[in-house]
Amino acid sequence: MILCDIGNTSYHFLDKDRSYKEDVNLFNPNSITKKIYYICVNHKVKLVLDKLDNWIDLSENIDMKNYYDSIGVDRIFACEAIKNGVIVDAGSAITVDVVKDGIFDGGFIYPGKKAMSECYKGISSALDYEFNFSLDLKKLPKNSQDSISYGYLKNLHTEVESYNLPIYLTGGDSCEFIKIFPNATIDEMLIFKGMKKIIETI
Amino acid sequence: MILCDIGNTSYHFLDKDRSYKEDVNLFNPNSITKKIYYICVNHKVKLVLDKLDNWIDLSENIDMKNYYDSIGVDRIFACEAIKNGVIVDAGSAITVDVVKDGIFDGGFIYPGKKAMSECYKGISSALDYEFNFSLDLKKLPKNSQDSISYGYLKNLHTEVESYNLPIYLTGGDSCEFIKIFPNATIDEMLIFKGMKKIIETI
Repeated sequence: MILCDIGNTSYHFLDKDRSYKEDVNLFNPNSITKKIYYICVNHKVKLVLDKLDNWIDLSENIDMKNYYDSIGVDRIFACEAIKNGVIVDAGSAITVDVVKDGIFDGGFIYPGKKAMSECYKGISSALDYEFNFSLDLKKLPKNSQDSISYGYLKNLHTEVESYNLPIYLTGGDSCEFIKIFPNATIDEMLIFKGMKKIIETI
Repeated sequence: MILCDIGNTSYHFLDKDRSYKEDVNLFNPNSITKKIYYICVNHKVKLVLDKLDNWIDLSENIDMKNYYDSIGVDRIFACEAIKNGVIVDAGSAITVDVVKDGIFDGGFIYPGKKAMSECYKGISSALDYEFNFSLDLKKLPKNSQDSISYGYLKNLHTEVESYNLPIYLTGGDSCEFIKIFPNATIDEMLIFKGMKKIIETI
């Protein structure tokens, strides 16, 4: 069974235990003839896949009653993977989704590390710092680098911790964010786990 | 006594009870011959004022031991105005500063409304929404507009409220942020109050 999670920049494949990525602009989905279960947030790719019989869109098998229309399908499948917890998907945006007793409780969207850093820099060159992920979140800062790091990270930290639920970290910046969520579990397979669960229901 | 708070875009004057602004690029500080006490975060303007005897820089009268070098002088003077409280200055950036028993306890910097809105939009056109300042911060959202509004506002709200101190709102976007801090006091004269206090010590 081959699974594929398609984002704006890459196809992320799981072929048995092997996980690998292909560039969205370079990979030709016609090059695979085996059956592939996929989810896709990329509208351009979706139009191509709709014409290929061996590419099966799993999003059609989701019971949408607990979600909302414009939510990204990748968020839905990550939620489907867990029973109780907060999922922090730290990519270009950070999506935070809460699942209680297997039901999506809501979520929010926060800027990713790169976007937020550019945001501060755009306000003033005096705010052009790398974020300090090792800062002490228990103490109000008294220097410029920590002032923006605290603004970005403490607020997110407080909210995510407030749910008192297990925290699952996924996405490209997981390794940075684990520093502020040391008790979190990094799980890059979350979406694939959700996909496998949904396949079992078909 | 004339007071002037100079930012990146304008001279903000207080002449007795009359408060008015002049454009930084159009106003000629030579046109005033009376004595003026000022603070200035604008380096270009500062160079001009340094040559004028009637413009007196109040920042030199601050005891810096509780602040830090790179903090904006406007933040210092707002802090000097109060004894206990949180100052939320909502402009192009949002600065949040905590004062306890007349001493600066630290602070942080968060993106202003416009910068944060552009930040979300830059990540994806699907996140191009106005912030909903009237959203219910007690409930995780289930729609896109509230997902980014919650990400922006709830995190800030939780942090600012956590200090259990009186909240003072100042800056151009005060009227929006009062919606999420309904118990706050809007005070556009905070910096001038701090300036008057420092003048008394000279």
